[in-house]
Amino acid sequence: MLLPFPQIKAIVGDENLLTSPEELYCYSFDASKMRFVPEGVAFPAEAAQVSALVKLANEYSFAVYPRGSGSGMVGACLAQGGLVIVTNRLNRILEIDADNMTAVLEPGVITGEFQKAAAKCGLFYPPDPASLPFSTMGGNVATCAGGPRAVKYGVTRDYLLGLEMVLPTGEIIRTGTRTMKGVVGYDLTRLMAGSEGTLGIFTKIIVRLIPAPESVRTLTAVFSNLDCAANAICEILRDRIIPSTMELMDQATIGAVENHLRIGLPVEAEALVLIEVDGPGILLDGQVERIVGICKKAGASKTEVAQCDAERDRLWQARRSISPALGRIRPGKINEDVTVPRTRIPELIRSIRTLAEKYDLPIVCFGHAGDGNIHTNIMLDRKDEGERRRAGKAVEELFGIVLGLEGTLSGEHGIGIAKSPFIELEVGPGGLDAMRRIKQALDPLNIMNPGKMFVPDRTFLDGSFA
Amino acid sequence: MLLPFPQIKAIVGDENLLTSPEELYCYSFDASKMRFVPEGVAFPAEAAQVSALVKLANEYSFAVYPRGSGSGMVGACLAQGGLVIVTNRLNRILEIDADNMTAVLEPGVITGEFQKAAAKCGLFYPPDPASLPFSTMGGNVATCAGGPRAVKYGVTRDYLLGLEMVLPTGEIIRTGTRTMKGVVGYDLTRLMAGSEGTLGIFTKIIVRLIPAPESVRTLTAVFSNLDCAANAICEILRDRIIPSTMELMDQATIGAVENHLRIGLPVEAEALVLIEVDGPGILLDGQVERIVGICKKAGASKTEVAQCDAERDRLWQARRSISPALGRIRPGKINEDVTVPRTRIPELIRSIRTLAEKYDLPIVCFGHAGDGNIHTNIMLDRKDEGERRRAGKAVEELFGIVLGLEGTLSGEHGIGIAKSPFIELEVGPGGLDAMRRIKQALDPLNIMNPGKMFVPDRTFLDGSFA
Repeated sequence: MLLPFPQIKAIVGDENLLTSPEELYCYSFDASKMRFVPEGVAFPAEAAQVSALVKLANEYSFAVYPRGSGSGMVGACLAQGGLVIVTNRLNRILEIDADNMTAVLEPGVITGEFQKAAAKCGLFYPPDPASLPFSTMGGNVATCAGGPRAVKYGVTRDYLLGLEMVLPTGEIIRTGTRTMKGVVGYDLTRLMAGSEGTLGIFTKIIVRLIPAPESVRTLTAVFSNLDCAANAICEILRDRIIPSTMELMDQATIGAVENHLRIGLPVEAEALVLIEVDGPGILLDGQVERIVGICKKAGASKTEVAQCDAERDRLWQARRSISPALGRIRPGKINEDVTVPRTRIPELIRSIRTLAEKYDLPIVCFGHAGDGNIHTNIMLDRKDEGERRRAGKAVEELFGIVLGLEGTLSGEHGIGIAKSPFIELEVGPGGLDAMRRIKQALDPLNIMNPGKMFVPDRTFLDGSFA
Repeated sequence: MLLPFPQIKAIVGDENLLTSPEELYCYSFDASKMRFVPEGVAFPAEAAQVSALVKLANEYSFAVYPRGSGSGMVGACLAQGGLVIVTNRLNRILEIDADNMTAVLEPGVITGEFQKAAAKCGLFYPPDPASLPFSTMGGNVATCAGGPRAVKYGVTRDYLLGLEMVLPTGEIIRTGTRTMKGVVGYDLTRLMAGSEGTLGIFTKIIVRLIPAPESVRTLTAVFSNLDCAANAICEILRDRIIPSTMELMDQATIGAVENHLRIGLPVEAEALVLIEVDGPGILLDGQVERIVGICKKAGASKTEVAQCDAERDRLWQARRSISPALGRIRPGKINEDVTVPRTRIPELIRSIRTLAEKYDLPIVCFGHAGDGNIHTNIMLDRKDEGERRRAGKAVEELFGIVLGLEGTLSGEHGIGIAKSPFIELEVGPGGLDAMRRIKQALDPLNIMNPGKMFVPDRTFLDGSFA
């Protein structure tokens, strides 16, 4: 249907509604490389406008698609027609309460900017998705974003205390508390974390903060054998050190990055591990010493400890260069973010090597070894139909392997459109039905971000990735 | 209706169904002192039996009431007729995975026993409700139990990773993951934390563990002025020390305990604060020194640091004796567990003093100052109708005060029957309606723990507390 543009303009103002094909095109994609063009894009400035837009959608039966910065990996914010509601004008940090260590902010606040504002108060908001320089807090809550620090600090839901939100029926409700404790009714707040814009549009977010860590130390360890690296990682945790980061690069990744940077990375090694510890300065030298000892004992051929910020940057350089480096192997990739209990990582990576051989496609693994979240990049030329088909099969087989290892299909990216054909594999028919019933209960007309999560439309599978 | 006893016996066996009045009486109460007698009490031994019972309930339209050890404070497990399903026979710790720092256990495991088992592996399950020597992990998840350690370590939901559960329609589903990260569909796991047995019966629980803290130090500080105590508490956190416990006793509490124990407590003081820090031993002496300095600067008249376990026990003695001591003031009490941002505690306690005068009832405040969770005990003689009525009014006024201070009606106890008349005050009509719709979506026949949370039945209010 055609959107009721006059009514939408009456709510947000002429200047806050996009309708031209050129403008709409800019809101037709996210980081998944899928493309769907909306009919309109609205930029409300306050909760009352969001509510009015959603009530209008109920009245006129059009779909609304909440959107932040569009940095999601699975198409969860893409609009198959309908009205995109961008929350980026709600972008104020309303309060940082240093004494109670909480903050209240609007959904359009950029996560990295919020972290800087918190740091000025000596406080720390740990969740660190790679997109944090441009992704929004609203998007981070909607996807329950996480990053390298999850091993020690958890993910977005672990800091989320409360929300103000517009339900799919248009009512504005407040959920949660400003306190660590709160058990009044169902936990709608945590239900919303990771709900991918299908259950409501956030208009305020309350999070808790923690004291900023005093110091950080960074080191790397090179292993000729992957199992030795995995053992070292477990041994560090067994020694009751919880690093704030433990990033693993497999041999294919090391090779790709070296090919890109030419900085003398150990291309013969099966694993390069980047480790950071943070906390009181007085503890860290001892922890670094123990970690180096554990790595050497586990078979590390080389360890290197950063002695200054410049060295720290150098050690991070390889990890940070993975994404640009991968383009050199193949023009396209399918980027999965499977997660397994960390002791199962060697089994996972060995199985992935077998998959790569079976389907004759390079598969590059790197990611967050501490929490078992391994970014698995199947490299392909998307113009090659055979490669596309083989890659699709490799993904399906990968998911079976991951579930067999007691893992999950997605640690960070979520379901959206891209993984909706597979959700039932993990949650089962009963679990999926329970989710569908909740969706229907809160969004009886299915107007909020329809076509996501519960729609196993396999037609997106072949063409959408690249 | 009469329960279909032959069918129930066929599921759990004759010996696992109670039907005599004497036996039923034993399952007619919890710690709220309300009384409701069920028609039957079943003790299933496995998930399949729980599922069969729930399917039977759907078929015959009788209510089922999940129950652990019955230590809840708000009547959330009480059965108004129908069948109580006690999950205490599902009491195995199935797995403690020390390397991945996770555990899988059945709902009937006693929380304190689980903590001991984890400790044997050098691991720590922090949530510490006062009931932990006898309450179950299933009950702890259903109520999202918390305790003194929440200020540093959070509550049950912060450790919950996944569940196996029987939905109100009888299907068995699995939710969540074994990993810190997992964003596959709606977060049914955290939705269940605190759902008070209204959305499902847990048959397996997956939790994460953390390394056991190396050391603990305990100290107390006495303040002649309550505001000074509150300032000290904030100042400690401002100094970026997060104690694992900060327990506050107000003057009424100190007086009650001294009257009970006669150990020379400072009855003239307005506040006694018990503080514990835990972590690497090398840090703790310095932290204790800083805390003592902060307390003295804030006006503490006396501080005392435990030098050995015996002294630590002695410092804890007053805190642990509060409950038995209160009986001496009045035979009955209404025990509320309101929670406010910690900087608002002085305002809260001053308002409560005014309430005590206005309604001519002693009100005793103590609790978890670090997380703002203040146990507010309105002391009364339940046989005195006037006191009962005045106490009821004081509770209503208290809730208004707490919400005005940006707090929550309940930090630990939950809603159940006792607080159901007040839930809408906090979550609003829209929030309550969203919760009701979720309940209806997952339990269309309203057979699972009906009459709780959403039933604002004020008839329970007067007579139920004691």
